[in-house]
Amino acid sequence: MNNTLLSTHYNPTTGEIIGAPVVKRYLVDLRGCFAGGAAYAVALARGNPLLYSVASVAPADGEGDLHYGLGVIYPGKIGDEYYMTKGHLHAWRPAGEFYFGLRGAGVMLLEDEATGASRLLPLTVNAVVYVPGHTAHRTMNTGAEPLVYLGVYPARAGHDYGVIAERNFRMCVVERDGLPVMIKR
Amino acid sequence: MNNTLLSTHYNPTTGEIIGAPVVKRYLVDLRGCFAGGAAYAVALARGNPLLYSVASVAPADGEGDLHYGLGVIYPGKIGDEYYMTKGHLHAWRPAGEFYFGLRGAGVMLLEDEATGASRLLPLTVNAVVYVPGHTAHRTMNTGAEPLVYLGVYPARAGHDYGVIAERNFRMCVVERDGLPVMIKR
Repeated sequence: MNNTLLSTHYNPTTGEIIGAPVVKRYLVDLRGCFAGGAAYAVALARGNPLLYSVASVAPADGEGDLHYGLGVIYPGKIGDEYYMTKGHLHAWRPAGEFYFGLRGAGVMLLEDEATGASRLLPLTVNAVVYVPGHTAHRTMNTGAEPLVYLGVYPARAGHDYGVIAERNFRMCVVERDGLPVMIKR
Repeated sequence: MNNTLLSTHYNPTTGEIIGAPVVKRYLVDLRGCFAGGAAYAVALARGNPLLYSVASVAPADGEGDLHYGLGVIYPGKIGDEYYMTKGHLHAWRPAGEFYFGLRGAGVMLLEDEATGASRLLPLTVNAVVYVPGHTAHRTMNTGAEPLVYLGVYPARAGHDYGVIAERNFRMCVVERDGLPVMIKR
Protein backbone atom coordinates (compact mmCIF):
# COMPACT_ATOMS: atom_id res chain seq x y z
CA MET A 1 0.00 0.00 0.00
CA ASN A 2 1.22 3.50 -0.82
CA ASN A 3 0.40 5.60 2.26
CA THR A 4 1.07 8.91 0.51
CA LEU A 5 -1.87 8.11 -1.78
CA LEU A 6 -4.38 7.84 1.08
CA SER A 7 -4.79 11.60 0.82
CA THR A 8 -4.84 13.24 -2.61
CA HIS A 9 -6.19 16.43 -4.17
CA TYR A 10 -7.53 17.16 -7.62
CA ASN A 11 -8.36 20.25 -9.61
CA PRO A 12 -11.83 19.95 -11.22
CA THR A 13 -11.07 22.80 -13.63
CA THR A 14 -7.81 21.50 -15.11
CA GLY A 15 -8.33 17.80 -14.38
CA GLU A 16 -4.97 17.48 -12.63
CA ILE A 17 -4.35 15.29 -9.58
CA ILE A 18 -1.38 16.61 -7.65
CA GLY A 19 1.52 14.18 -8.03
CA ALA A 20 -0.33 11.60 -10.13
CA PRO A 21 0.85 10.07 -13.42
CA VAL A 22 -0.96 11.15 -16.58
CA VAL A 23 -1.65 9.35 -19.86
CA LYS A 24 -2.21 11.57 -22.91
CA ARG A 25 -4.01 10.53 -26.09
CA TYR A 26 -3.53 12.41 -29.33
CA LEU A 27 -5.54 12.25 -32.55
CA VAL A 28 -3.09 9.73 -34.00
CA ASP A 29 -3.83 7.36 -31.10
CA LEU A 30 -7.54 7.28 -32.00
CA ARG A 31 -7.06 5.64 -35.41
CA GLY A 32 -10.11 3.49 -36.15
CA CYS A 33 -12.33 5.08 -33.50
CA PHE A 34 -14.13 7.63 -35.68
CA ALA A 35 -16.75 6.32 -38.08
CA GLY A 36 -15.86 9.03 -40.57
CA GLY A 37 -12.53 7.76 -41.87
CA ALA A 38 -12.15 10.48 -44.48
CA ALA A 39 -12.74 13.29 -41.97
CA TYR A 40 -10.21 11.62 -39.64
CA ALA A 41 -7.58 11.48 -42.40
CA VAL A 42 -8.15 15.14 -43.28
CA ALA A 43 -7.88 16.19 -39.62
CA LEU A 44 -4.70 14.15 -39.08
CA ALA A 45 -3.12 15.71 -42.17
CA ARG A 46 -3.67 19.11 -40.55
CA GLY A 47 -2.12 18.22 -37.18
CA ASN A 48 -2.15 15.92 -34.19
CA PRO A 49 -4.04 17.64 -31.36
CA LEU A 50 -4.33 16.33 -27.80
CA LEU A 51 -7.80 14.80 -27.47
CA TYR A 52 -7.78 13.73 -23.85
CA SER A 53 -5.70 12.92 -20.78
CA VAL A 54 -6.26 10.70 -17.78
CA ALA A 55 -4.53 11.01 -14.39
CA SER A 56 -4.87 8.12 -11.96
CA VAL A 57 -4.36 7.21 -8.31
CA ALA A 58 -3.74 3.62 -7.24
CA PRO A 59 -3.25 3.42 -3.45
CA ALA A 60 -3.33 -0.40 -3.28
CA ASP A 61 -3.96 -3.41 -5.52
CA GLY A 62 -5.75 -5.96 -3.34
CA GLU A 63 -8.95 -7.81 -4.15
CA GLY A 64 -11.26 -5.20 -2.56
CA ASP A 65 -9.21 -2.10 -3.38
CA LEU A 66 -10.28 0.77 -5.62
CA HIS A 67 -8.47 3.19 -7.91
CA TYR A 68 -9.66 6.53 -9.24
CA GLY A 69 -8.85 8.64 -12.23
CA LEU A 70 -9.57 12.12 -13.53
CA GLY A 71 -10.26 12.43 -17.24
CA VAL A 72 -10.16 15.58 -19.36
CA ILE A 73 -11.55 15.47 -22.90
CA TYR A 74 -10.93 18.63 -24.88
CA PRO A 75 -13.70 20.20 -26.98
CA GLY A 76 -13.65 19.53 -30.70
CA LYS A 77 -15.03 17.44 -33.54
CA ILE A 78 -13.82 15.27 -36.39
CA GLY A 79 -16.49 15.76 -39.04
CA ASP A 80 -19.76 15.43 -37.10
CA GLU A 81 -18.25 13.22 -34.37
CA TYR A 82 -17.14 14.61 -31.03
CA TYR A 83 -13.69 14.17 -29.53
CA MET A 84 -13.90 10.87 -27.67
CA THR A 85 -11.91 8.33 -25.68
CA LYS A 86 -10.71 5.08 -27.25
CA GLY A 87 -13.18 3.18 -25.12
CA HIS A 88 -12.57 -0.10 -23.36
CA LEU A 89 -13.89 -3.11 -21.54
CA HIS A 90 -12.47 -4.07 -18.19
CA ALA A 91 -9.99 -6.94 -18.42
CA TRP A 92 -11.79 -8.36 -15.36
CA ARG A 93 -15.22 -8.27 -16.96
CA PRO A 94 -17.40 -8.15 -13.81
CA ALA A 95 -15.82 -4.81 -12.76
CA GLY A 96 -18.20 -1.85 -12.78
CA GLU A 97 -17.20 1.82 -12.78
CA PHE A 98 -18.74 5.09 -11.63
CA TYR A 99 -18.21 8.31 -13.60
CA PHE A 100 -18.86 11.65 -11.92
CA GLY A 101 -19.12 14.76 -14.10
CA LEU A 102 -17.13 17.71 -12.72
CA ARG A 103 -16.98 20.27 -15.55
CA GLY A 104 -18.43 20.72 -19.03
CA ALA A 105 -20.90 18.49 -20.85
CA GLY A 106 -20.57 15.11 -22.51
CA VAL A 107 -22.15 11.74 -23.09
CA MET A 108 -21.17 8.14 -22.46
CA LEU A 109 -21.76 5.31 -24.89
CA LEU A 110 -22.34 1.98 -23.14
CA GLU A 111 -22.46 -1.30 -25.05
CA ASP A 112 -23.32 -4.64 -23.46
CA GLU A 113 -20.66 -7.10 -24.60
CA ALA A 114 -23.03 -10.06 -24.81
CA THR A 115 -26.11 -8.50 -26.43
CA GLY A 116 -24.68 -5.42 -28.14
CA ALA A 117 -27.45 -3.34 -26.53
CA SER A 118 -26.29 0.29 -26.51
CA ARG A 119 -27.15 3.30 -24.38
CA LEU A 120 -26.24 6.96 -24.53
CA LEU A 121 -26.17 8.63 -21.10
CA PRO A 122 -25.46 12.29 -20.26
CA LEU A 123 -22.30 13.12 -18.28
CA THR A 124 -22.75 16.64 -16.98
CA VAL A 125 -21.77 18.46 -13.79
CA ASN A 126 -23.11 16.54 -10.74
CA ALA A 127 -24.39 13.72 -12.95
CA VAL A 128 -23.27 10.16 -12.25
CA VAL A 129 -23.08 7.36 -14.79
CA TYR A 130 -22.73 3.75 -13.71
CA VAL A 131 -21.00 1.39 -16.14
CA PRO A 132 -21.99 -2.17 -15.17
CA GLY A 133 -19.60 -5.08 -15.65
CA HIS A 134 -19.29 -6.66 -19.11
CA THR A 135 -19.97 -3.26 -20.71
CA ALA A 136 -17.76 -1.42 -23.19
CA HIS A 137 -17.73 2.32 -22.53
CA ARG A 138 -16.59 5.42 -24.35
CA THR A 139 -16.85 9.08 -23.31
CA MET A 140 -17.39 12.09 -25.60
CA ASN A 141 -17.18 15.83 -25.03
CA THR A 142 -20.30 17.41 -26.58
CA GLY A 143 -19.67 20.92 -25.24
CA ALA A 144 -17.50 23.95 -25.87
CA GLU A 145 -15.21 23.65 -22.82
CA PRO A 146 -13.13 20.76 -21.46
CA LEU A 147 -15.13 17.84 -20.08
CA VAL A 148 -13.67 16.84 -16.70
CA TYR A 149 -14.85 13.73 -14.86
CA LEU A 150 -13.90 11.37 -12.05
CA GLY A 151 -13.87 7.62 -12.60
CA VAL A 152 -13.79 5.08 -9.75
CA TYR A 153 -13.19 1.37 -10.41
CA PRO A 154 -11.97 -1.81 -8.72
CA ALA A 155 -8.17 -2.04 -8.57
CA ARG A 156 -8.31 -5.34 -10.39
CA ALA A 157 -10.53 -4.02 -13.25
CA GLY A 158 -7.73 -3.51 -15.76
CA HIS A 159 -8.22 -2.21 -19.30
CA ASP A 160 -8.98 -4.26 -22.39
CA TYR A 161 -8.65 -2.03 -25.47
CA GLY A 162 -8.21 -4.90 -27.89
CA VAL A 163 -11.84 -5.84 -28.51
CA ILE A 164 -12.80 -2.24 -29.30
CA ALA A 165 -9.71 -1.65 -31.43
CA GLU A 166 -10.64 -4.69 -33.53
CA ARG A 167 -14.30 -4.05 -34.15
CA ASN A 168 -15.10 -0.61 -32.63
CA PHE A 169 -18.49 0.08 -31.02
CA ARG A 170 -21.62 -0.95 -32.89
CA MET A 171 -23.03 2.57 -32.62
CA CYS A 172 -21.49 5.97 -33.19
CA VAL A 173 -22.48 9.36 -31.87
CA VAL A 174 -22.88 12.32 -34.20
CA GLU A 175 -24.04 15.88 -33.84
CA ARG A 176 -27.45 16.56 -35.39
CA ASP A 177 -29.00 20.03 -34.99
CA GLY A 178 -26.53 20.73 -32.17
CA LEU A 179 -27.34 17.59 -30.16
CA PRO A 180 -25.60 14.22 -29.77
CA VAL A 181 -27.47 11.39 -31.47
CA MET A 182 -26.61 7.67 -31.39
CA ILE A 183 -26.80 5.98 -34.81
CA LYS A 184 -25.61 2.74 -36.38
CA ARG A 185 -22.14 2.86 -37.86
CA MET B 1 -29.49 -4.61 -12.30
CA ASN B 2 -31.59 -1.49 -11.86
CA ASN B 3 -31.28 0.37 -15.18
CA THR B 4 -32.82 3.59 -13.83
CA LEU B 5 -29.80 3.85 -11.50
CA LEU B 6 -27.27 3.89 -14.36
CA SER B 7 -27.86 7.64 -14.55
CA THR B 8 -28.27 9.63 -11.33
CA HIS B 9 -27.81 13.23 -10.17
CA TYR B 10 -26.77 14.68 -6.87
CA ASN B 11 -26.80 18.09 -5.27
CA PRO B 12 -23.40 18.89 -3.69
CA THR B 13 -24.89 21.71 -1.63
CA THR B 14 -27.72 19.80 0.05
CA GLY B 15 -26.26 16.30 -0.25
CA GLU B 16 -29.40 14.93 -1.90
CA ILE B 17 -29.38 12.30 -4.65
CA ILE B 18 -32.57 12.56 -6.68
CA GLY B 19 -34.75 9.52 -5.97
CA ALA B 20 -32.32 7.78 -3.61
CA PRO B 21 -33.12 6.40 -0.14
CA VAL B 22 -31.69 8.28 2.85
CA VAL B 23 -30.61 7.12 6.30
CA LYS B 24 -30.69 9.75 9.05
CA ARG B 25 -28.74 9.58 12.30
CA TYR B 26 -29.75 11.65 15.30
CA LEU B 27 -27.81 12.39 18.48
CA VAL B 28 -29.54 9.51 20.26
CA ASP B 29 -28.18 7.09 17.64
CA LEU B 30 -24.58 8.07 18.48
CA ARG B 31 -24.67 6.78 22.08
CA GLY B 32 -21.19 5.58 23.02
CA CYS B 33 -19.42 7.38 20.17
CA PHE B 34 -18.37 10.55 22.00
CA ALA B 35 -15.52 10.23 24.49
CA GLY B 36 -17.13 12.92 26.66
CA GLY B 37 -20.05 10.97 28.16
CA ALA B 38 -21.16 13.82 30.42
CA ALA B 39 -21.26 16.35 27.59
CA TYR B 40 -23.24 13.83 25.53
CA ALA B 41 -25.80 13.34 28.32
CA VAL B 42 -26.20 17.10 28.75
CA ALA B 43 -26.68 17.60 24.99
CA LEU B 44 -29.20 14.78 24.75
CA ALA B 45 -31.19 16.21 27.66
CA ARG B 46 -31.50 19.42 25.63
CA GLY B 47 -32.73 17.78 22.42
CA ASN B 48 -32.04 15.23 19.73
CA PRO B 49 -30.62 17.03 16.69
CA LEU B 50 -29.97 15.44 13.31
CA LEU B 51 -26.20 14.82 13.12
CA TYR B 52 -25.89 13.36 9.63
CA SER B 53 -27.65 11.70 6.72
CA VAL B 54 -26.48 9.35 3.99
CA ALA B 55 -28.18 8.81 0.62
CA SER B 56 -27.07 5.83 -1.45
CA VAL B 57 -27.26 4.40 -4.96
CA ALA B 58 -26.94 0.66 -5.58
CA PRO B 59 -27.30 -0.10 -9.31
CA ALA B 60 -26.23 -3.75 -9.03
CA ASP B 61 -24.88 -6.22 -6.47
CA GLY B 62 -22.46 -8.48 -8.36
CA GLU B 63 -18.91 -9.31 -7.40
CA GLY B 64 -17.34 -6.39 -9.30
CA ASP B 65 -20.13 -3.85 -8.84
CA LEU B 66 -19.86 -0.57 -6.95
CA HIS B 67 -22.26 1.56 -4.94
CA TYR B 68 -21.99 5.21 -4.03
CA GLY B 69 -23.37 7.38 -1.30
CA LEU B 70 -23.59 11.06 -0.44
CA GLY B 71 -23.07 11.99 3.19
CA VAL B 72 -24.00 15.22 4.93
CA ILE B 73 -22.68 15.89 8.44
CA TYR B 74 -24.13 19.00 10.03
CA PRO B 75 -21.89 21.46 11.88
CA GLY B 76 -21.83 21.23 15.65
CA LYS B 77 -20.00 19.91 18.70
CA ILE B 78 -20.65 17.88 21.83
CA GLY B 79 -18.25 19.35 24.34
CA ASP B 80 -14.98 19.64 22.41
CA GLU B 81 -15.81 16.81 19.98
CA TYR B 82 -17.18 17.46 16.51
CA TYR B 83 -20.40 15.98 15.15
CA MET B 84 -19.31 12.63 13.68
CA THR B 85 -20.54 9.46 12.04
CA LYS B 86 -20.91 6.22 14.01
CA GLY B 87 -17.98 4.80 12.05
CA HIS B 88 -17.69 1.29 10.72
CA LEU B 89 -15.62 -1.48 9.25
CA HIS B 90 -16.69 -3.18 6.06
CA ALA B 91 -18.36 -6.53 6.67
CA TRP B 92 -16.21 -7.79 3.78
CA ARG B 93 -12.94 -6.63 5.30
CA PRO B 94 -10.82 -6.32 2.10
CA ALA B 95 -13.19 -3.65 0.71
CA GLY B 96 -11.65 -0.19 0.34
CA GLU B 97 -13.56 3.07 -0.09
CA PHE B 98 -12.90 6.48 -1.62
CA TYR B 99 -14.26 9.65 -0.03
CA PHE B 100 -14.47 12.82 -2.12
CA GLY B 101 -15.06 16.13 -0.33
CA LEU B 102 -17.71 18.29 -2.02
CA ARG B 103 -18.56 21.03 0.49
CA GLY B 104 -17.34 22.25 3.86
CA ALA B 105 -14.42 20.96 5.91
CA GLY B 106 -13.88 17.82 7.94
CA VAL B 107 -11.49 15.07 8.90
CA MET B 108 -11.51 11.30 8.72
CA LEU B 109 -10.23 9.03 11.46
CA LEU B 110 -8.80 5.77 10.10
CA GLU B 111 -7.87 2.87 12.38
CA ASP B 112 -6.15 -0.29 11.19
CA GLU B 113 -8.10 -3.19 12.66
CA ALA B 114 -5.04 -5.40 13.16
CA THR B 115 -2.49 -2.92 14.53
CA GLY B 116 -4.70 -0.14 15.89
CA ALA B 117 -2.54 2.38 14.01
CA SER B 118 -4.58 5.56 13.59
CA ARG B 119 -4.49 8.42 11.10
CA LEU B 120 -6.32 11.71 10.84
CA LEU B 121 -6.79 12.90 7.23
CA PRO B 122 -8.40 16.11 5.96
CA LEU B 123 -11.63 15.86 3.96
CA THR B 124 -12.09 19.19 2.25
CA VAL B 125 -13.45 20.32 -1.12
CA ASN B 126 -11.61 18.48 -3.93
CA ALA B 127 -9.69 16.35 -1.44
CA VAL B 128 -9.84 12.57 -1.69
CA VAL B 129 -9.33 10.13 1.17
CA TYR B 130 -8.72 6.44 0.54
CA VAL B 131 -9.82 4.03 3.24
CA PRO B 132 -7.93 0.76 2.69
CA GLY B 133 -9.51 -2.58 3.55
CA HIS B 134 -9.45 -3.79 7.17
CA THR B 135 -9.69 -0.16 8.35
CA ALA B 136 -12.34 1.33 10.64
CA HIS B 137 -13.32 4.83 9.53
CA ARG B 138 -15.27 7.73 10.98
CA THR B 139 -15.93 11.18 9.52
CA MET B 140 -16.23 14.46 11.41
CA ASN B 141 -17.38 17.95 10.43
CA THR B 142 -14.80 20.45 11.72
CA GLY B 143 -16.28 23.49 9.99
CA ALA B 144 -19.19 25.91 10.30
CA GLU B 145 -21.25 24.66 7.33
CA PRO B 146 -22.50 21.20 6.36
CA LEU B 147 -19.79 18.77 5.30
CA VAL B 148 -20.90 17.02 2.08
CA TYR B 149 -18.92 14.13 0.59
CA LEU B 150 -19.19 11.29 -1.87
CA GLY B 151 -18.27 7.74 -0.89
CA VAL B 152 -17.65 4.95 -3.41
CA TYR B 153 -17.28 1.32 -2.31
CA PRO B 154 -17.62 -2.24 -3.60
CA ALA B 155 -21.22 -3.46 -3.66
CA ARG B 156 -20.25 -6.37 -1.47
CA ALA B 157 -18.50 -4.20 1.18
CA GLY B 158 -21.38 -4.14 3.66
CA HIS B 159 -21.28 -2.35 7.01
CA ASP B 160 -20.09 -3.75 10.30
CA TYR B 161 -21.03 -1.33 13.10
CA GLY B 162 -20.74 -3.93 15.85
CA VAL B 163 -17.02 -3.81 16.53
CA ILE B 164 -17.02 -0.02 16.85
CA ALA B 165 -20.19 0.00 18.95
CA GLU B 166 -18.53 -2.42 21.39
CA ARG B 167 -15.16 -0.78 21.84
CA ASN B 168 -15.26 2.54 19.93
CA PHE B 169 -12.14 3.89 18.20
CA ARG B 170 -8.89 3.93 20.14
CA MET B 171 -8.43 7.64 19.43
CA CYS B 172 -10.81 10.55 19.61
CA VAL B 173 -10.69 13.92 17.88
CA VAL B 174 -11.11 17.13 19.84
CA GLU B 175 -10.90 20.81 19.04
CA ARG B 176 -7.80 22.52 20.42
CA ASP B 177 -7.21 26.20 19.61
CA GLY B 178 -9.72 25.89 16.77
CA LEU B 179 -8.09 22.86 15.13
CA PRO B 180 -8.91 19.13 15.19
CA VAL B 181 -6.39 17.10 17.17
CA MET B 182 -6.26 13.32 17.54
CA ILE B 183 -5.69 12.15 21.14
CA LYS B 184 -6.00 8.91 23.10
CA ARG B 185 -9.41 8.27 24.60
